[in-house]
Amino acid sequence: MKYLITGLLSICSLASASAQKNPDSLVIRQLFNEALENGKAYEDLRSLCKDIGARISGSAQAEMAVEWGKRKMELYGFDKVTLQPIMVPHWERGTSEAAWMQPKSGDLIPLDILALGGSIGTNGLLKGDIVEFKHLDDLKKADRKLVEGKIVFLNQAMDPKQISTFGAYGGCYAIRGEGAVEASKLGAIAVVIRSLAMPEDDHPHTGSMHYEEGVSKIPAAALSTNAANALSEALQFGRTTFAFEMDCRDFPDAPSHNVMAEITGSEFPDQIITIGGHLDSWDAGEGAHDDGTGVIHCLEALRILKVLKIRPKHTIRVVFFMNEENGNKGGINYANWVKENGEKHVAAIESDRGGFSPRGFECDGSEEQLLMIQVFKKALLPYGLYHFEKGYGGVDIGPLKKQYEGIPLFGFVPDSQRYFDFHHAESDVFENVNKRELELGCGSMAAFLYLLDKTL
Amino acid sequence: MKYLITGLLSICSLASASAQKNPDSLVIRQLFNEALENGKAYEDLRSLCKDIGARISGSAQAEMAVEWGKRKMELYGFDKVTLQPIMVPHWERGTSEAAWMQPKSGDLIPLDILALGGSIGTNGLLKGDIVEFKHLDDLKKADRKLVEGKIVFLNQAMDPKQISTFGAYGGCYAIRGEGAVEASKLGAIAVVIRSLAMPEDDHPHTGSMHYEEGVSKIPAAALSTNAANALSEALQFGRTTFAFEMDCRDFPDAPSHNVMAEITGSEFPDQIITIGGHLDSWDAGEGAHDDGTGVIHCLEALRILKVLKIRPKHTIRVVFFMNEENGNKGGINYANWVKENGEKHVAAIESDRGGFSPRGFECDGSEEQLLMIQVFKKALLPYGLYHFEKGYGGVDIGPLKKQYEGIPLFGFVPDSQRYFDFHHAESDVFENVNKRELELGCGSMAAFLYLLDKTL
Repeated sequence: MKYLITGLLSICSLASASAQKNPDSLVIRQLFNEALENGKAYEDLRSLCKDIGARISGSAQAEMAVEWGKRKMELYGFDKVTLQPIMVPHWERGTSEAAWMQPKSGDLIPLDILALGGSIGTNGLLKGDIVEFKHLDDLKKADRKLVEGKIVFLNQAMDPKQISTFGAYGGCYAIRGEGAVEASKLGAIAVVIRSLAMPEDDHPHTGSMHYEEGVSKIPAAALSTNAANALSEALQFGRTTFAFEMDCRDFPDAPSHNVMAEITGSEFPDQIITIGGHLDSWDAGEGAHDDGTGVIHCLEALRILKVLKIRPKHTIRVVFFMNEENGNKGGINYANWVKENGEKHVAAIESDRGGFSPRGFECDGSEEQLLMIQVFKKALLPYGLYHFEKGYGGVDIGPLKKQYEGIPLFGFVPDSQRYFDFHHAESDVFENVNKRELELGCGSMAAFLYLLDKTL
Repeated sequence: MKYLITGLLSICSLASASAQKNPDSLVIRQLFNEALENGKAYEDLRSLCKDIGARISGSAQAEMAVEWGKRKMELYGFDKVTLQPIMVPHWERGTSEAAWMQPKSGDLIPLDILALGGSIGTNGLLKGDIVEFKHLDDLKKADRKLVEGKIVFLNQAMDPKQISTFGAYGGCYAIRGEGAVEASKLGAIAVVIRSLAMPEDDHPHTGSMHYEEGVSKIPAAALSTNAANALSEALQFGRTTFAFEMDCRDFPDAPSHNVMAEITGSEFPDQIITIGGHLDSWDAGEGAHDDGTGVIHCLEALRILKVLKIRPKHTIRVVFFMNEENGNKGGINYANWVKENGEKHVAAIESDRGGFSPRGFECDGSEEQLLMIQVFKKALLPYGLYHFEKGYGGVDIGPLKKQYEGIPLFGFVPDSQRYFDFHHAESDVFENVNKRELELGCGSMAAFLYLLDKTL
């Protein structure tokens, strides 16, 4: 691509042309200008990722992040900066894991592995024969004799044909969540899964897993997709043993906090719109896309409204939720707390799908509520937002639904293609977030919030 | 983002649900499935970028790429694989450039620099006082006394407020294309520009520049955005000298080729739809996004049609154009050649905006031709394509317009946010292309081609 082409300018001036047409479009243009020209998002994300880094619930880093969030909200001059005390699970990885396989050929081959969050440790080196299943359903139907005393290997790959990678994630999620329980029911001594990841590379992806009352707890870990492919290939040539060691363990629940602040509404100060992302992350990487960018989208959206002196009609409360990843104590406690306080909540918005180019918003609500946000499309299309459909809000704001019947929940939808390259892996770092993509997300969040507040 | 959420599945199954509705949607689903599940795109791009690498017109690597392209087309079983001989400019960078500044403080500070394509060399070390302009128009209006005998520094930044980065590129393009001529007219001894790049980093971005008959040729180079910022800051504190050396020079025009092949049409074999990208690149990086991905989009689209045994009505010709970057000899010669051969051309499609997530297609044509492709939106929206607007086709297919009155030209439009991170820079490498984003582009190209062929 070489020349200056006047034709190209036609697409570029769409947003400016639209801004001349009506006052809403003018305001939205200002919101995006602030995000793109004077934005604090990229530096704030750098600071969260690099000065603090990974921040799993119960860790010292998670508490640093709480203080960081409080300080940011004060610095930006928001109202009522508050820490809501909660108790959260506290699990630690301990010494780094190690794993290898020994195929028929006899050569030891090291494999990239990470304990799943919540798993017990192996209590020293754990060795055994390995048996592979390509689908969790195959394991469920398996003969106990095939599994007993062995290590189960769940090698179910994400479906590349799904256009949204979240669909492919949903299709595989159960091997991580339920694998240990199903394998243990048949007498397995451990379970290792193929990482829930799109690319074939060397990064194992962790994430939450569950045990069940009455079923023996066995260690559970994720192999990188390359390691899973290598193990599967070795098994085609015959018996393969697998050995690994994990030092992870649970600690007693720890005290932590949600962090929140507001811009008080001008007309309906007692009617609240919550926007939020989660401050905790897994302990691999830096929690950049999951969910550093979500936290920053919300922080920056409020900062933009504040600095442009756009006073919303309703009170807008930004919440940095704690413990989305392994318990959702932040989301559950927040919903209970606001209900007990007699607050009136009219809507909630969450960002927890990464910091990629914006595509739109989804609505977990009624047909009427969906129609309401579909009206926004005209004003937001010049910024690349076209997807306004029924769908999902988010884990953190989900519990509000139980407390407030009929409350609409909205989820920010960025492009999904790269999310599962990084999700819960060492590669979820600041460097893998693009500055402009992040800033456009902040502009989108501010614009959606502005339109929603006007419309409600 | 943690849980399996059934709500999420709603967006993911959109494409599948749509595929059940009509036969076109079924075919389009198959095209995307092939791209995503059995695609050759990523490996083909790897081979072009890593086995060959940068391939500037006139270089041995460009001829390797010609042979590579021919071989691929033969391997995939296309009809009439042909090399069209053309002559192309031949410019070489020579020994790597070096530059530094010496601010008032006296400390030497090295700066990242690249010669602009087509520039003369400095003939040894060139040193001089530097004078900064924030806009090309300021230079044009400047007093000759201010510029004469000095090095002009054009520090015009891309406008971050533009939503499409191509708009911001268009707004700055002239400092690269015309900077040397305008500076030389006022007696400058050289020109250095701020790279046409969005991020602030250490990569200088090269690209074509022009001289003018009757105006002395002076050396022209691009500084990285960080280097430009540092130089600008130094100048605020007073007189700063600048020194650099560039060894680049022109050689006589060299023989080269466009590479082309076809799938012969079943109903109208003499009516041709051309799809293409350009095989040449600049000599920095690997020409991954510019325009390796465009070449691969077209190659893979045809491979997909072929392997799924979808026989188009019209003849589809894929062309790997040579020399888009510094002369467009490939595009011009192709258009002349097909006209002289008495061929009938009914449409052309180009991909030259990178290998990012698809957003749509633009139409350089009549209102009627635009309406024709807007009908495709319904079938392509489940794959994330929503932008079907008037706009630009591409540099390579542009000359067809002069030869065939009323021919519609279409340009593939991916997300633009990251394009000017890499464009013409050392960072335009295979690693910066995402596999799924590339594959979705290939599916989009195949689907658009399928619908266009059916409709014409």
